[in-house]
Amino acid sequence: MTDAATNDPHPPAGGPLDLDAFRSNGHQLVEWIADYLAGLEQRPVIEPVEPGEVRAKLPATPPRDPEPFAELLADLDQVVVPGLAHWQHPNWFAFFPAMSSPASILAEFAAAGLGVQGMLWSTSPAVTEIETHVLDWLVDLLGVPTGWKSDGPGGGVIQMSASDSTHLALVLARERCRDRTGAAVESMVVYTSDQAHSSIAKGAAIAGYRHVRQLPVNDQFAVEPGTLETAIAEDLAAGRQPAFVCAAVGTTGTTAIDPVRRFGEICADQHIWLHVDAAYAGSAMLCPEFRHHQDGLETVDSYTFNPHKWMATNFDCSVFWVADRGSLIDTLSVVPPYLRNQASDSGQVIDYRDWHVPLGRRFRALKLWWVLRSFGVEGLQQMIRSHVGWAQELSDWVDRDPRLERFAPTTFALVCFTHVDGDEATDRLAEALHQAGFAVTASTAADRRYLRVSIGSTWTEHRHVEALRQAIDASA
Amino acid sequence: MTDAATNDPHPPAGGPLDLDAFRSNGHQLVEWIADYLAGLEQRPVIEPVEPGEVRAKLPATPPRDPEPFAELLADLDQVVVPGLAHWQHPNWFAFFPAMSSPASILAEFAAAGLGVQGMLWSTSPAVTEIETHVLDWLVDLLGVPTGWKSDGPGGGVIQMSASDSTHLALVLARERCRDRTGAAVESMVVYTSDQAHSSIAKGAAIAGYRHVRQLPVNDQFAVEPGTLETAIAEDLAAGRQPAFVCAAVGTTGTTAIDPVRRFGEICADQHIWLHVDAAYAGSAMLCPEFRHHQDGLETVDSYTFNPHKWMATNFDCSVFWVADRGSLIDTLSVVPPYLRNQASDSGQVIDYRDWHVPLGRRFRALKLWWVLRSFGVEGLQQMIRSHVGWAQELSDWVDRDPRLERFAPTTFALVCFTHVDGDEATDRLAEALHQAGFAVTASTAADRRYLRVSIGSTWTEHRHVEALRQAIDASA
Repeated sequence: MTDAATNDPHPPAGGPLDLDAFRSNGHQLVEWIADYLAGLEQRPVIEPVEPGEVRAKLPATPPRDPEPFAELLADLDQVVVPGLAHWQHPNWFAFFPAMSSPASILAEFAAAGLGVQGMLWSTSPAVTEIETHVLDWLVDLLGVPTGWKSDGPGGGVIQMSASDSTHLALVLARERCRDRTGAAVESMVVYTSDQAHSSIAKGAAIAGYRHVRQLPVNDQFAVEPGTLETAIAEDLAAGRQPAFVCAAVGTTGTTAIDPVRRFGEICADQHIWLHVDAAYAGSAMLCPEFRHHQDGLETVDSYTFNPHKWMATNFDCSVFWVADRGSLIDTLSVVPPYLRNQASDSGQVIDYRDWHVPLGRRFRALKLWWVLRSFGVEGLQQMIRSHVGWAQELSDWVDRDPRLERFAPTTFALVCFTHVDGDEATDRLAEALHQAGFAVTASTAADRRYLRVSIGSTWTEHRHVEALRQAIDASA
Repeated sequence: MTDAATNDPHPPAGGPLDLDAFRSNGHQLVEWIADYLAGLEQRPVIEPVEPGEVRAKLPATPPRDPEPFAELLADLDQVVVPGLAHWQHPNWFAFFPAMSSPASILAEFAAAGLGVQGMLWSTSPAVTEIETHVLDWLVDLLGVPTGWKSDGPGGGVIQMSASDSTHLALVLARERCRDRTGAAVESMVVYTSDQAHSSIAKGAAIAGYRHVRQLPVNDQFAVEPGTLETAIAEDLAAGRQPAFVCAAVGTTGTTAIDPVRRFGEICADQHIWLHVDAAYAGSAMLCPEFRHHQDGLETVDSYTFNPHKWMATNFDCSVFWVADRGSLIDTLSVVPPYLRNQASDSGQVIDYRDWHVPLGRRFRALKLWWVLRSFGVEGLQQMIRSHVGWAQELSDWVDRDPRLERFAPTTFALVCFTHVDGDEATDRLAEALHQAGFAVTASTAADRRYLRVSIGSTWTEHRHVEALRQAIDASA
């Protein structure tokens, strides 16, 4: 019988912690990933899978003994890849992009290798300081208010997703409203567009709200300021407490844009928290010509955008900015004795654990830093402008085709259109495009079916958009 | 002037999307990570850094043009590594471990390379089905109730951190209490130990609760059932509504264990949600001899444990199980038209987006799958037993040393002790151990300072624990 106290779980060779094996396995995986990405175009964009098909390939019980890495790698090919929708496929035009890039993939690998925690400044100062620095860079790069930088009253933090950012904004709004009015959350009201992302209603439910007004939109799918004012007045008259407004800069359905400045004026009058959801379109603000769409940001309380959508950075990387970091930290800071430390007590450092729900945090700033450096700012601007240019080209062609009708303005890189023969024809067109090897999203707005073509997947080139256009032409 | 519509952002060679460069950069990074891990022992476990020192090395503005990968890699050595606390260092005995392992690091790399989203079953079936399958495996491996498997009424999901899991449990408890009693969250009460993790109080604040009772503990740092009963009775008498109880199986301070079964009986009587926080100690349940510590799990509503602590899996990977998945999905499900799909509508599949705050999700199950397969179940059991054995050895030595006094039971792999000369001597001992190159945590409980020595960092071997013991001996 082995004595546990001297039984070393780290055998020098062949075991699960063998670093020489890590080297050779790692080299194999580098080639596997590169081959996967290079070969995507030869695969179906969405693999045909039935529910339960993947599980049926897995053993009922886990292995008692170690399996060689070769089997893990083989199962990537035999179990994993045939069960995926390939979000990085050049023919991926569905949802919004979930971009990636070589530098970002490698940064995830490096961060996993380092295996450090950024919950407190002191638990790895570089993790915190690089995050703060890169988010300060982004303030200038996107032209958002300079007061959101770390040397102003605001500040930024990387969250997992825009849903997390929006949920947190809803929590901060709830606390502000409670402190100001003494109202219970049951009487508070959240306002958003009926085109807003599901994360607003979901975040509101999680934060405890009972009243969410999904406001009707105009023919551009944006909320008119008067619509918001009327709804607020009705709720006040009924004794409810308006607490939170979300303005979308680029809705998920059609990239519609709510009027941020006018919303800001209304919210300031009523002491309502104003949150801007620019999850997708925020990345476009790298190019100054798009910034007029979010005019009025100096009036907002919080803002979120996702570099993991359209800025070549792997999920998860959602940026959340607040205009007043004090209210954030006051709400979330709980300091138990085992987390007390000199650096935090001095007030000289940022402890991001007080900026979101989780305590632990990965070194996600590394990928943002590496993406900015590997593309360069002009490279990212060029990427955005290319995607928008291709979208405009497709949009113009749709406008010229009598069988199709554009459904919403093409402001960024999402093109929305219908078949003039109605919903059934639109759905048939979507199905034909899937059969032809393109992933697009069919959705509904204003009681009509329409197609969303979202351009901006990592490996999409102009030729893929052109091939999609030809497929639409052939199927319409 | 280039035409945006034909301006390809993906130049065939040398650009940020060049896959040949990815291959060679990737191979360099594999070697860099292996060298980092192999060389950790030669570095200080916590690098000496002053606030602002890392940022001072960074340029004020981001680069306009691309930088070569060699510069990114060089900055890992020059900017990042000198600014870290090395959580994977073999002399890391602070907090709880944040384990990693070669297979887990490679799985993170593979998941980043695939770049797929598991928000819905249909957005990548393999991501969902492998997660479900591996979490079902874990139900058997940890001996938790079989009803938590996907073919029972419950179910499991991977979250970012135990803080996220606990926050979600608090939200579900709030909704159950509202539905049952009609009470406002302002009158609901949360009960936890005064030794419980800060995430309970933080999660309660985020979920909107105003009343959190941090119950006093006995001399084993556990809450007595009678203490809980009395507190509940007082709140009921005062017109407040008991809504949530957290039982810790392994507190952060001392790995104390609240009596789950007795708590379960009390909560059942009062219709209170019972959550078990086994963030650290859950991994020990791989070994049947520890399971009696969580006797009574069939009475609980939710449970969380973190493979990213003590199961060789990189952060983030927190498992959250609920006994009744219906209440979870009812609270969180919001389905907008762009997420509607045939598979979800059929009810045959799991859409994990309805199981947590975020919508998007990384393929985190891959690392859990690869860890189980690369270690084998017996390998993981052996690892846990070795860590516990080394802790017991150190604990026994502390008991024999007249200068030291054990502060709490050594149940798992955390050893808590004080210097018999009091708080100042204990703090001086902590400082001496830091100077000697060991990371330990000094904390406070029951108004006394004590040292936490947490054994279980990935690369820690018996000889490192023995070196720490010698350093304690020399410094005490």
